[in-house]
Amino acid sequence: MAVYTQLSSEAMAELVCAFDVGALLSAKGIAEGVENSNWLIDAERGRYILTIYEKRVRVEDLPFFLGLLDHLAERGCPAPRTIHDQTGAQFRFHEGKAAALIEFLPGVSLTEPSPAQAHAVGRALAQLHLAALDYPGRRANDLGLSGWRPLAERAAPGFPEIDPELGPLIARELDALEAEWPADLPQSTIHADLFPDNVLMLGDEVTGLIDFYFACTDAMAYDLAVTHSAWTFDKDGRAFDAAVGRALVTGYEEVRPLSPAERAALPVLARGSALRFTLTRAYDWVNTPAGALVTRKDPMAFARRLSFYAAAGQDAFA
Amino acid sequence: MAVYTQLSSEAMAELVCAFDVGALLSAKGIAEGVENSNWLIDAERGRYILTIYEKRVRVEDLPFFLGLLDHLAERGCPAPRTIHDQTGAQFRFHEGKAAALIEFLPGVSLTEPSPAQAHAVGRALAQLHLAALDYPGRRANDLGLSGWRPLAERAAPGFPEIDPELGPLIARELDALEAEWPADLPQSTIHADLFPDNVLMLGDEVTGLIDFYFACTDAMAYDLAVTHSAWTFDKDGRAFDAAVGRALVTGYEEVRPLSPAERAALPVLARGSALRFTLTRAYDWVNTPAGALVTRKDPMAFARRLSFYAAAGQDAFA
Repeated sequence: MAVYTQLSSEAMAELVCAFDVGALLSAKGIAEGVENSNWLIDAERGRYILTIYEKRVRVEDLPFFLGLLDHLAERGCPAPRTIHDQTGAQFRFHEGKAAALIEFLPGVSLTEPSPAQAHAVGRALAQLHLAALDYPGRRANDLGLSGWRPLAERAAPGFPEIDPELGPLIARELDALEAEWPADLPQSTIHADLFPDNVLMLGDEVTGLIDFYFACTDAMAYDLAVTHSAWTFDKDGRAFDAAVGRALVTGYEEVRPLSPAERAALPVLARGSALRFTLTRAYDWVNTPAGALVTRKDPMAFARRLSFYAAAGQDAFA
Repeated sequence: MAVYTQLSSEAMAELVCAFDVGALLSAKGIAEGVENSNWLIDAERGRYILTIYEKRVRVEDLPFFLGLLDHLAERGCPAPRTIHDQTGAQFRFHEGKAAALIEFLPGVSLTEPSPAQAHAVGRALAQLHLAALDYPGRRANDLGLSGWRPLAERAAPGFPEIDPELGPLIARELDALEAEWPADLPQSTIHADLFPDNVLMLGDEVTGLIDFYFACTDAMAYDLAVTHSAWTFDKDGRAFDAAVGRALVTGYEEVRPLSPAERAALPVLARGSALRFTLTRAYDWVNTPAGALVTRKDPMAFARRLSFYAAAGQDAFA
């Protein structure tokens, strides 16, 4: 959520020049992205987002992430194309850090989505899953089931400080999810982080799906559950909006109907999603120094979702 | 240097709508500006900067600042026009904070200006001064001579921690400048903060003068001295570039020749400028909590300029 790398306009002009988009006309550091540095760039041939990857994104994953963008854009998904440099490379290096130039897409990120907007997002997510079926890249979901217990162990020292109920809730859910987690659901490349922040919309139309840096090979229905947990609650995770949830799933199924096994699994998948974000937020909570540039997000906002899904079962998807 | 106000896209769409620029197409929080929140906005009728004014800018000064932009733009200066709202107002309020929509200008801010670029900046500064001569607004320079001693007193507790030489240097220079400060130099509205950050350029052309939130009524030659102190040193204030300085003054004089009194005053004016930035940086240094969102700027980078100008006299402008 900040610009971490200092880049002089002279260095930026040189970097942009290598991408063959004409001369640099404007560059503004923008306050978004997951621990990357981002600039909104105007060049003679168009508008772009220049991203310099900081420590969280591994360079060896970039071909998977950036190749996915091109794969999806070619198939008509509203994902931004990557601009290849004059040698055909998807990214370059600037002072040891990888830098990519990505198409700019219009649209704004919603804070309070309507059912009609959630419906459009469900459709876009299903289109993404279908379009990604023949993407040759593979990437394990390191924030999936097998990653949660080790993550919980590393975050555990912080649980009591965050909330006395948090530790017992996580212990209970870890046991339950490891026992109940569905195998053999159909997979594709999934976004795995499709929060409203990562969807650009104009009115009821999805104009951009962005920030694919958690994308991985996993169950498509899990991605729908992630999106459900991200879109159907208020920020604190207290108020659940059933109409938005229904519209999301209905939109998804208009493009890609769920199998009976997928539909049956939605409650446990949603608990998994809520656990995943509870754990990463708790880990960041414990490991982010007070006063750091990054704003810490409240782990309890997802712990509440976790409790909700555990109690509601299929009623959360009725 | 950050986005301080959280603004949902829904609230932003409503705010932008009131400015009659068509529907909101895109909004990105940008990482610049002096303690204001800024977004780069695309709407149906153009690109704009949306600024929400945080505590540093007083609302009662906004008519002066925003009126100046329109005055300068009408006279051909590369200052951004303000967009008035549907009732003709220059700014609106959003949750108690003033918000203005300002024309977007292309160009990038330089880190290492060449003499040719400094020459263009000198010309643009003189054009600004001439165009502002008939601007009816008046605003005292609260960071001018009379403001320095009180500011020094408030910052003084931090001097020893910053550098043992800082306190004696400031005491000496305050005495000298109060004795030697020139009266009766010709005035206009001046920018008073024309650092490279606040000039947008494409090649050797000035495409934008921005961030007028220190603008005030003061001596034009003082503004040239401020610009000289801001453009002719490296970031640390150690290396002076005489060629850049000469080009700046030459460019200025091509448009508005200095009087003998103004030329004679340049060294003392430049010491005053260096003292002004040393003091505000020292004050911020002492009063910015460690780990705050704002990066503290080194006061010694301007204390070095101050010592340089005091030692060099007219040689700094030869």
